Amino acid sequence: MSQRALSVSRMTGNRSTFADWYQAVVREADMAEPSPVRGAMVIKPWGYGVWEEMQRDLDRRIKETGHDNCYFPLFIPLSFIAKEAEHVEGFAKEMAVVTHHRLKNVGGKLQPDPDAELEEPYIVRPTSETIIGDAFSRWIKSHRDLPMLINQWANVVRWEMRPRLFLRTTEFLWQEGHTAHATSADAMVETMKILELYRSFAEDTLAMPVIAGEKPENERFPGAVSTFSIEAMMQDGKALQAGTSHFLGQHFSRAQNIRFQNDAGELVYCYTTSWGLSTRMVGGIIMTHGDDDGLRLPPMVAPRQVVIVPMLRDKPEDAQVLEYCESLRAALAAGRAFDERIRVLLDTKATKSADKRWNWVRRGAPLIVEIGPRDASNGQVTFMRRDDLRAGDKVKSVALPRDAFVAQVPKLLSEMQNNLFVEAKKRLDANIRTDVKTFEQLAEYFGAGSDDEDASGDFKGWVRAPWCKPGGAELDALDTKLKQLKLTLRNAPLDQGPVSGTCLFTGKPAVEEILIARAY
Amino acid sequence: MSQRALSVSRMTGNRSTFADWYQAVVREADMAEPSPVRGAMVIKPWGYGVWEEMQRDLDRRIKETGHDNCYFPLFIPLSFIAKEAEHVEGFAKEMAVVTHHRLKNVGGKLQPDPDAELEEPYIVRPTSETIIGDAFSRWIKSHRDLPMLINQWANVVRWEMRPRLFLRTTEFLWQEGHTAHATSADAMVETMKILELYRSFAEDTLAMPVIAGEKPENERFPGAVSTFSIEAMMQDGKALQAGTSHFLGQHFSRAQNIRFQNDAGELVYCYTTSWGLSTRMVGGIIMTHGDDDGLRLPPMVAPRQVVIVPMLRDKPEDAQVLEYCESLRAALAAGRAFDERIRVLLDTKATKSADKRWNWVRRGAPLIVEIGPRDASNGQVTFMRRDDLRAGDKVKSVALPRDAFVAQVPKLLSEMQNNLFVEAKKRLDANIRTDVKTFEQLAEYFGAGSDDEDASGDFKGWVRAPWCKPGGAELDALDTKLKQLKLTLRNAPLDQGPVSGTCLFTGKPAVEEILIARAY
Repeated sequence: MSQRALSVSRMTGNRSTFADWYQAVVREADMAEPSPVRGAMVIKPWGYGVWEEMQRDLDRRIKETGHDNCYFPLFIPLSFIAKEAEHVEGFAKEMAVVTHHRLKNVGGKLQPDPDAELEEPYIVRPTSETIIGDAFSRWIKSHRDLPMLINQWANVVRWEMRPRLFLRTTEFLWQEGHTAHATSADAMVETMKILELYRSFAEDTLAMPVIAGEKPENERFPGAVSTFSIEAMMQDGKALQAGTSHFLGQHFSRAQNIRFQNDAGELVYCYTTSWGLSTRMVGGIIMTHGDDDGLRLPPMVAPRQVVIVPMLRDKPEDAQVLEYCESLRAALAAGRAFDERIRVLLDTKATKSADKRWNWVRRGAPLIVEIGPRDASNGQVTFMRRDDLRAGDKVKSVALPRDAFVAQVPKLLSEMQNNLFVEAKKRLDANIRTDVKTFEQLAEYFGAGSDDEDASGDFKGWVRAPWCKPGGAELDALDTKLKQLKLTLRNAPLDQGPVSGTCLFTGKPAVEEILIARAY
Repeated sequence: MSQRALSVSRMTGNRSTFADWYQAVVREADMAEPSPVRGAMVIKPWGYGVWEEMQRDLDRRIKETGHDNCYFPLFIPLSFIAKEAEHVEGFAKEMAVVTHHRLKNVGGKLQPDPDAELEEPYIVRPTSETIIGDAFSRWIKSHRDLPMLINQWANVVRWEMRPRLFLRTTEFLWQEGHTAHATSADAMVETMKILELYRSFAEDTLAMPVIAGEKPENERFPGAVSTFSIEAMMQDGKALQAGTSHFLGQHFSRAQNIRFQNDAGELVYCYTTSWGLSTRMVGGIIMTHGDDDGLRLPPMVAPRQVVIVPMLRDKPEDAQVLEYCESLRAALAAGRAFDERIRVLLDTKATKSADKRWNWVRRGAPLIVEIGPRDASNGQVTFMRRDDLRAGDKVKSVALPRDAFVAQVPKLLSEMQNNLFVEAKKRLDANIRTDVKTFEQLAEYFGAGSDDEDASGDFKGWVRAPWCKPGGAELDALDTKLKQLKLTLRNAPLDQGPVSGTCLFTGKPAVEEILIARAY
């Protein structure tokens, strides 16, 4: 077998290999690394560049649907959290707590100054419903102030005991939308509008097919009346919850006194929503599109869509090669793809051309151009497509006349964007089983769980099955049974007709279909 | 006197009026408001929109000069700060300290869980030299890794006892650049390149004239070999430090072991720099360009450059007016100014047209268009320029044929950008006194200090005077004397020739000129 760009293969063995492969991509594509702060990561330029492209596209969508960006404090007074805890069952208590506002040198050792203890501790925001709700209660007075449509780009902190780069980190970056409406129906329309916005962002921008649906009761955001998600299938078959949209009813508006005067002059509580999408999605892109040569980036979010590597040999013709490359770079940079300037880099670093090639392969730059003296004198361009890198084990490279290449780049990028989506969509569609009829068959298909969540055998997809949508204690019992198989209920897809048949779990008449899967 | 858009006038009385005026603009232009978190603010959509435009422009400049964006953890282990404290004198100890990672309900009261105390406390970053330096010590191995040019957009926390919206807040947003170089000369070139980048950003993008220079020893960033700043003059004569660039020598690289192998194969310490610019600059824009009608935004950073207000009267012709406005909006939005799409809003909110006008005047939208039935039927556009709003006390509005207006908007915006700069530049140039020769004259000019920093009398500009550049204890003594007059040394302007004459403070031969001013 020929050499691969990456040190670890993704699926020759089992899931434990996939986890190693994921780590290798994050490391070797130079996306991120662990930090000295437990569970927090350093996002390196290439990883942050992908996030910036995602942000730009998502931010545009959020603004186009009428939302304004704001910025609220990082810290939340403990009393706000306490008030929420009274109204909201089961909210997580793993939070970073700020208790002092000064350091002091005591006996040669720097430590929190006992004289600078806060009267009321602050929580580092795990999410901002409470602090934004507090502002809403001041900002909203009459129906004319509604809908209130706010978004925030921010860092949040949730203590993670088992961190994994991008997927679960103590600190992560996200956007969080918070809206208030006059009626339940308006708030529900908003909730669904955002779910569709996330679906379109995932599929059209990240080339990541997803299934949009409603979370079962036990998977709801604490305090939500209903929670909707988009779920994506990673290459190991696991589900990744890739964005959530919550209809909060009046739970938060009652806790925080968010009221408005209606047409009849009465003060009534608003209906609120919240929704978020985070840097976790960068991990989703890796696990959706990566291959044994590293990352493959959807062109729409590639920080560099075309990279030009000059093949230099410390010879006089180097100057001609560089000049040719620079002229090619300028021609491409003047062009547009996806209605934006093409992002092109001429890689002039002082490293070997072969190292550069493999570096850009691992990082997943969509088009990698290699220009040698022959290309320069023949007026041609030799390039590789990252979505179609190899014929058998050999790397494919294609030569085109320079002008034809420049003219074709927008079409090539668009084709690659589409190819990545189609490939992932085929995998998703082919790996949702609908023939599992009983809990025993479910257990048999997935096999028993193991203590190590990653060493759970061969590829397994998802099961889509009718169920009776139990709630309360019955659902809790079911959840426990599923957890023993390391399974979770993902969502009830929106896209389903009337359901007949019996519930996979209880044998009672089914009311809808639900997705069951292992998950990140 | 006619009605003004703002409730407070800026300079009829003294500085205390100016402080009230500033607060009124922040509030009435809907930029920001205090939050329930001591010293932290909520940045509202219009204020955040200005910051987004600033970010976009500054980010482009930072990237064009070869810097990559990254993201580093919010938390810094206490040991990192302790190590810095050993190497760096006089660093501030007012920091938010995280000591627990969980809350617990004890006796019905939510509090930090005693069982979840961190072994080592974390500091919420006040700046990121230490955590980024730690990464540099891992990333940098050979001279081929240099220069290392990194930037980060982030929130930081510094406990503020006397907070003021945008100008001094416990939490603020900024970019912080961190670079490492092989030689002292390279690091110095970087330091000055960024100072120039900040100068150009302030003057060309924010229309805010500044003086670039070197800070005296007592005003340096702790640990810096030299600190450079740009200083802007606010309309009350006070100086605002608007951006700083630090040459750190090897202080931080020695504390953090940032070394590289040079050509001779020896491991040697890098030279590092850091530099930052923050949301404080939004306050600077307000105090540079605002007037008694509110904010005036430089068009390059106005979230909306043109706002169209339809004059509706609940009559049948409203439909025609709206249609005309929408067509005008589309025509403007298709055009470009400053090499970007024109940012235009059609304000269709359900409030009175007159209220809308004054709302946009207060917010400082550059061009405010009012369209009534007569404009619509005559094919004309009636508009106000925010930089030239009044003739005497009356509001000026101008009518132009629609197509002429659409064609002229880019030129109008560019003129306004320039006018705001010229106006502020005249004020700066006219208010730097160079005729103050002795400390007694200095004291006489500024008058004695007062306990209330804002109630310090009439407008006073800056003094530029030769000095002997003392250091150590002599400088400390001088600093104390100046503090009694509420004065500070701002910077020694880069733009100065050889200096003759004697030091204002000591009567010794002078070596350079320095700026002396009251400051934010």
